Amino acid sequence: MGGSEASIEHPQQPYVPRDLHLPGYVPCFLSQFDIVVPYFGSSIVLVVFIWLLSGRYAKITKTDRLLMCWWAFTGLTHIILEGYFAFSPDFYKENTPFYLAEVWKEYGKADSRYLARDATVVVLEGITGALVGPACLLAVYAIASRKAYSYALQLSISLGQLYGFVAYFMTAYLEGDNFAASPYYYWAYYVGANSPWLPIPILIVIRCWKKISAALQVDKKMKIK
Amino acid sequence: MGGSEASIEHPQQPYVPRDLHLPGYVPCFLSQFDIVVPYFGSSIVLVVFIWLLSGRYAKITKTDRLLMCWWAFTGLTHIILEGYFAFSPDFYKENTPFYLAEVWKEYGKADSRYLARDATVVVLEGITGALVGPACLLAVYAIASRKAYSYALQLSISLGQLYGFVAYFMTAYLEGDNFAASPYYYWAYYVGANSPWLPIPILIVIRCWKKISAALQVDKKMKIK
Repeated sequence: MGGSEASIEHPQQPYVPRDLHLPGYVPCFLSQFDIVVPYFGSSIVLVVFIWLLSGRYAKITKTDRLLMCWWAFTGLTHIILEGYFAFSPDFYKENTPFYLAEVWKEYGKADSRYLARDATVVVLEGITGALVGPACLLAVYAIASRKAYSYALQLSISLGQLYGFVAYFMTAYLEGDNFAASPYYYWAYYVGANSPWLPIPILIVIRCWKKISAALQVDKKMKIK
Repeated sequence: MGGSEASIEHPQQPYVPRDLHLPGYVPCFLSQFDIVVPYFGSSIVLVVFIWLLSGRYAKITKTDRLLMCWWAFTGLTHIILEGYFAFSPDFYKENTPFYLAEVWKEYGKADSRYLARDATVVVLEGITGALVGPACLLAVYAIASRKAYSYALQLSISLGQLYGFVAYFMTAYLEGDNFAASPYYYWAYYVGANSPWLPIPILIVIRCWKKISAALQVDKKMKIK
């Protein structure tokens, strides 16, 4: 490797594969701390806000209040973070410390497909940002106002999240699973940061499935009578 | 293009991009007619069989009987055709006129990603063949035996089909939409053969959504009383 030549062509390009060509790439301005803390911090503020607000309505159970927190958190993550990525092909050229571009420059260290503009990742993030995200916010409203479609909606969204989850990891696996700059980024971001989106949607699918089936069982019995 | 040299390297490789490297490729043995007619023929026999069989149960409505036909047809298509593709990376080397390999050698003329073993296509077909397909057959049973989970199941499967449909076409679009050997194959196979899997799942999603919401509305009113 001609060290100096390579670094002229890819100035401080920290991604794997190392020969990923990113013309106009501008490195991260913010530290990992400055990227992760605002996300966790604003998420905690959001969850506390939704929890307290939903507590003002006596009819909403604690489980439903927790679900409202989840849907608000995951919905805004989908719309703001993932929606930005899906519709910003040039984020890695951003030459100011714009937070959303920084997030994806940093996350790309765990999955360089985001930098390479891999079609699968763009489509999965596009569906998630443009369709699943707004549907999550609708779920917050549907739970709060006890809409009859609330369970069908939550089932649908959770299944969409699970489909995206499986497709995201399976495509990387089939392509050799070599898109992380180090095992640290692989486990912290690629595995760790995505991990809530497997067990939580599964639990919600099971819950909605049971509620829907129980209601239709009642409905069937009434019709037979 | 060095015509004779190219044909030695890719013997009668009929796919686009023309330089797609397929070592060991064996051309189609069967004609388009011999591939399409058995599929249509066996599908019609299946649909007539399910229609007549379901007619023996007086309680099943005509809509539900039609849905049983659809789920049997789409389920077996997913499991047999798409399941075969997902787990047969070497189908294009098949040197006998094995029907399932012929189907994909032929369909590849409309979408060469199937020959190139594109990870997105393999994952989408894998999910469809291994998960969605068996769930479709469960739906046939669930409708016939009037299970309370029938609507949740049909909603889930149809959403999965729609997710796959959108991801399939969007990834091709983002990658330049240039995988068909001719406009004929593009429109007949890529667009035409896939077209039922957009309107039918949408109609089923709407129907299930309404049934589920109505049942939960009834359930809610009963609890209030």
